[in-house]
Amino acid sequence: MSSASIKPIEQEDDYVTRLTDAERCLERKDPVVWSEWRPGAPLAQDQVEKFERDGFLVLEKIFLPGEIDALIEESARLRSDGSKLTQESLITEPDTNDVRTIFDLDLQSEVFRRLAEDVRIAEPVRFLLDDEVYVHQSRLNYKPGLTGKEFYWHSDFETWHAEDGMPRMRAISASVLLTDNDALNGPLMLMPGSQNTYVSCVGETPEDNHKSSLKRQKVGTPSAETLAKMSEKHGIEYAAGKKGTVILFDCNTMHGSNGNITPFPRSNAFFVYNAWSNQLEAPFGADEPRPNFLARRDPKEPLTLLEGHIE
Amino acid sequence: MSSASIKPIEQEDDYVTRLTDAERCLERKDPVVWSEWRPGAPLAQDQVEKFERDGFLVLEKIFLPGEIDALIEESARLRSDGSKLTQESLITEPDTNDVRTIFDLDLQSEVFRRLAEDVRIAEPVRFLLDDEVYVHQSRLNYKPGLTGKEFYWHSDFETWHAEDGMPRMRAISASVLLTDNDALNGPLMLMPGSQNTYVSCVGETPEDNHKSSLKRQKVGTPSAETLAKMSEKHGIEYAAGKKGTVILFDCNTMHGSNGNITPFPRSNAFFVYNAWSNQLEAPFGADEPRPNFLARRDPKEPLTLLEGHIE
Repeated sequence: MSSASIKPIEQEDDYVTRLTDAERCLERKDPVVWSEWRPGAPLAQDQVEKFERDGFLVLEKIFLPGEIDALIEESARLRSDGSKLTQESLITEPDTNDVRTIFDLDLQSEVFRRLAEDVRIAEPVRFLLDDEVYVHQSRLNYKPGLTGKEFYWHSDFETWHAEDGMPRMRAISASVLLTDNDALNGPLMLMPGSQNTYVSCVGETPEDNHKSSLKRQKVGTPSAETLAKMSEKHGIEYAAGKKGTVILFDCNTMHGSNGNITPFPRSNAFFVYNAWSNQLEAPFGADEPRPNFLARRDPKEPLTLLEGHIE
Repeated sequence: MSSASIKPIEQEDDYVTRLTDAERCLERKDPVVWSEWRPGAPLAQDQVEKFERDGFLVLEKIFLPGEIDALIEESARLRSDGSKLTQESLITEPDTNDVRTIFDLDLQSEVFRRLAEDVRIAEPVRFLLDDEVYVHQSRLNYKPGLTGKEFYWHSDFETWHAEDGMPRMRAISASVLLTDNDALNGPLMLMPGSQNTYVSCVGETPEDNHKSSLKRQKVGTPSAETLAKMSEKHGIEYAAGKKGTVILFDCNTMHGSNGNITPFPRSNAFFVYNAWSNQLEAPFGADEPRPNFLARRDPKEPLTLLEGHIE
């Protein structure tokens, strides 16, 4: 337990959170789409409208089958030999030592670095954020079948603001499916429209919160009452698709996933793109920022995007 | 832990299980549908064929809206005052004392007894089993949203044979949905066609196994390898539907359900109909039979079915 109290919250914080008195539902103070659509934009007008309305967008069939095979092969190679990866980037199953998550994915794999810089993903993201971008966090997720656990509802931005010091809602996550995902093997569930409400969560951030929150998040999740109201208002959709499908979602869209007792594993590569102008400051609701593998500080330069195919 | 060993398995047991050496996949030795279809039967021919092929059948819109309301009202009444129910029939949430399951449902509620005897459910079941029937087990299930836990894959018959002494595969479960169920709030998942394979499970039955298995079944579940093979062969379907939907499934159909982090609760009334000729004997894979609220012994007479409406 931390004996220090959290830093005084400055008056001007639009997204104050982790207070001890009460939960608050606040209005979003940033655009969801930062650009104006124009002919020639990297997304169609209805795609941009859908992202603005729902806070997420599914991109299908943007890769060739051979490219998807190359990503899956690289994923298997990375998981098969954890010794070549930095130890802090590796989360393993308690019982079997099987690799469940590899952080800093684009820094430890040439193929996945190439994927992060691919115009087919990063160009739409740059357009939606109307800025250059860099990778705030990246990871490979691999959830086995039969025993895959749930991820409870949360807004990523709440954590990134409180624990990493991300100032504005100007970041987008891209999940690239490496397995077929359907309704039953624990797909990403999202509340469409929830990106416009910021749930300021109750509770001080414990020291080294990320060490337990990566397994089960306790601080920084909305109350049962708020989740019930939000799901009543917004409904719940799930993002399923064949391997190779890409799901883009706003940093404040409420999301989670059920456990998975089907024998079918679920795997994806995950990149968080932050706007270049939105680099991290001191945390807004924690004593110490989280380590670099969870939230990169001082990126050297914006991503240079690549055309062509992944091999 | 039990210090006694399980009873010697008789040579002629077609459904030997809970052995200590190895799992076995055995062929079903009983029909799935015991009657020949004929015009005037209580199910259409394609419904009977579907049940025989898949091991389950969904019946929609068989109740009037007012009847479903009456069932839901009665369910809320029962859950609101546990003091009027027998204590052993009641399973509550560890933290909140909220009622999660009420066994002996038809014995403790006139309305649900009426439901169990309704021709719209019990007549199709009698036809499929080609026999008079009685209620082997009944219960009201209520799983809250947000925290509903999964039920791992199992065949009911394996437990009923091993722990209750049900001799043959001649029993059918009916689940009456009291909430809308979709793919995301942990619906019943089934492997269509799995009813034709009997998975003889490894492991001695612990004493009073039901006290823990009602929360999380450990003995009497197939191995990961077998579940992977079966799901590859059969696929996985889920039985969703509006409240009032009835799902009939064979006693040996492999089934389970995922947890439920959506805020939408899931509730159903559940009746197991056993053929009158298939009454319980001594357990085939346990020292002592489970208590009566889980497996009724010595039923007095077969169900008398009722026409008309539930009020």
